[in-house]
Amino acid sequence: MKKFHNQTRRNLLISSASSIAIAGIASFQKTVFAQAASDVIKPLPSYVAWKDPKSVIIHSSTTIETKRSAFGTSVITPTEQLYIRNNLPAPNPSIVANRDAWEISIQGVKEPRVFTLAELKSLGLETTAAVLQCSGNGRGYFPSKPSGTPWTVGAAGCVVWSGVPVRQVAQTLGGVLPSMKFITGTGGEKLPDGIDPKSIIVERSVPLAAMQDALLAWEMNGVPIPLAHGGPLRLIVPGYAGVNNIKYIKELTFSAQESDAKIMSHGYRMTPLGGKTDPSQPSVQEMNIKSWINSPFTDNGQVKPGKVQIQGVAFGGLHAVKGVEVSINGGKTWEQARFVGPDLGKYAWRQFVLEVLLGSGSYTLASRATDTSGKIQPETRGENQSGYNNNSWADHSFNIIVA
Amino acid sequence: MKKFHNQTRRNLLISSASSIAIAGIASFQKTVFAQAASDVIKPLPSYVAWKDPKSVIIHSSTTIETKRSAFGTSVITPTEQLYIRNNLPAPNPSIVANRDAWEISIQGVKEPRVFTLAELKSLGLETTAAVLQCSGNGRGYFPSKPSGTPWTVGAAGCVVWSGVPVRQVAQTLGGVLPSMKFITGTGGEKLPDGIDPKSIIVERSVPLAAMQDALLAWEMNGVPIPLAHGGPLRLIVPGYAGVNNIKYIKELTFSAQESDAKIMSHGYRMTPLGGKTDPSQPSVQEMNIKSWINSPFTDNGQVKPGKVQIQGVAFGGLHAVKGVEVSINGGKTWEQARFVGPDLGKYAWRQFVLEVLLGSGSYTLASRATDTSGKIQPETRGENQSGYNNNSWADHSFNIIVA
Repeated sequence: MKKFHNQTRRNLLISSASSIAIAGIASFQKTVFAQAASDVIKPLPSYVAWKDPKSVIIHSSTTIETKRSAFGTSVITPTEQLYIRNNLPAPNPSIVANRDAWEISIQGVKEPRVFTLAELKSLGLETTAAVLQCSGNGRGYFPSKPSGTPWTVGAAGCVVWSGVPVRQVAQTLGGVLPSMKFITGTGGEKLPDGIDPKSIIVERSVPLAAMQDALLAWEMNGVPIPLAHGGPLRLIVPGYAGVNNIKYIKELTFSAQESDAKIMSHGYRMTPLGGKTDPSQPSVQEMNIKSWINSPFTDNGQVKPGKVQIQGVAFGGLHAVKGVEVSINGGKTWEQARFVGPDLGKYAWRQFVLEVLLGSGSYTLASRATDTSGKIQPETRGENQSGYNNNSWADHSFNIIVA
Repeated sequence: MKKFHNQTRRNLLISSASSIAIAGIASFQKTVFAQAASDVIKPLPSYVAWKDPKSVIIHSSTTIETKRSAFGTSVITPTEQLYIRNNLPAPNPSIVANRDAWEISIQGVKEPRVFTLAELKSLGLETTAAVLQCSGNGRGYFPSKPSGTPWTVGAAGCVVWSGVPVRQVAQTLGGVLPSMKFITGTGGEKLPDGIDPKSIIVERSVPLAAMQDALLAWEMNGVPIPLAHGGPLRLIVPGYAGVNNIKYIKELTFSAQESDAKIMSHGYRMTPLGGKTDPSQPSVQEMNIKSWINSPFTDNGQVKPGKVQIQGVAFGGLHAVKGVEVSINGGKTWEQARFVGPDLGKYAWRQFVLEVLLGSGSYTLASRATDTSGKIQPETRGENQSGYNNNSWADHSFNIIVA
């Protein structure tokens, strides 16, 4: 498989930053590129040395994908297999040495204040299973070859998050101020010196309605959130693309306007092919209905004849997935698959399976999901400059040779 | 915390074995005891070096417990925290080097045959979340100090298993022969030479009715079952105590009688205090309704005053858990807790939480669960010689000092 250098959003942001900061940027970039180069040799960057090297594809030090063949059938994606995509390098591990001391400022409420994580833990508890997916998952299938990591299916996973509901935090502080329309989260990454913070800071806004199910989470899959995944504290907005789930969150503001940080105003927009990003373009937020097949998927495409359990995952963003059809002839005909395993709620993915009897020959396997709102996974991707939101069933199909 | 040497069932079996085999046994015991002794120094035995040493208590090389304070709130117990209790040392790791080649013989059906794991995978797929719990979990609370590992709460976890339903395997082979009443599973551990295999082999029978939900599982929590947990193939009997979930299963027989292996006839029986084990005594099979509190549980019992989220887990064996009450005064009064997080089905445990406001003082925290059949977790344990099936809420209560 070809390996690409990662053209992160971060690098894109840096390259368009104010020219007076060139020295600081250059030094910062050097560090990042040095890390990226060394990854070609080293199997895993040190901050994620605990990941399972056999389950992942390392694109760069900050972009690591789960292999399609590594996805299991247990609904939850093990933390050691889950993808990594960080807009900025992870902060110093010292921030997880004393997790309970982490501070977050809550603004845009009647009684704004700072909470320690220990204090947040006393306020409430909720546990939610939700798909975490990078906006660019499936970018590798765009023929336009957009800049950015060429993810196929593995920049996604289904994770169980535990934390305090954002609505409960707001309620504790007298409620959200009138006229506030967004939840804006600010990441606690260390920013390089000599550069406008707004040009690089990870700060995103989602509609206030997301408050209903959003969490300030300190645990994932049964363990304190690892540094690489945003611990000690991460904003989880179920049903929204990964970038909206702010890592190391240090400020949560109920705001009247969207953040004016560049990652919000000019990043993660659905820019037409060949166009320029613009705040008027739709932002990458709610995820679309999507599914893909994980098995039988092999590196060489060879499968033995006989009975085969075709299985994969399906999810619906803000809506539960209702059903999945599977095709073995590239979409000419479809058969209804069945769901297997526990239903972890509308934000989780479901495992589906279809049993087929395959004789010798060539097959194109595809899956097509429907959500409870009636949306059907489309055949074609929505073309856009940065390769976001790819949910085309045709792009996610693949060939096998049964022999 | 006191550390005990592990008086495993295995050692018990060996010590009562035929005397002509003394030489073989002595050498076998020496190996096991040498391992046990070295564990006092080494943090983790090599076959489970991938476990999280901070989350577990190492009783011996074959008995490792999850710390009460390490249980999270994400329903699923991470594999690296899950307890270990092996009746015999794990087989050679070579058996997981080529998992798909593992063979299992299916007997007591119209068309008995041997399947490879690869063949089983083509037959069907189901995914079930189920509590796995050692029969002796809670033994550490028996005042009679039974021999065996003095587990408190951590010889249990909630695991997602994937495999083929046993009923589907039987159906493929023409169905179970008439008059068969049990499913008997035989483990593939290597047995020591010079000793009657029946005196040491891990072979257990469960009622045929368990076929409805039993699995031959190859995956747990999203990864191929590790050797230490019974991979490449394990019999999972949801709702039944751990010992019935045969690791490295090499034979599954639908049988008219229970196995005559010693671990079945004289092991894991509810023997009266001071009595001798006897096949007429009830076998340790279906688990009882049970719950316990995991937080706030600290080594020194100190908790800060203010709002506290009391949380824990509850499960009902063959019946779903219906509700949980929590007491902060040792059972004088009770308050209904609420469930948090996704419901993974009747064999999984549920997380519960009760929010309380605690002023300075001393408190005794307890939880009491009820299942859908109406059974209520009892105050007192059922006394028995080996310390099995402890579901007493009083035994699982603990004190905290709020200051």
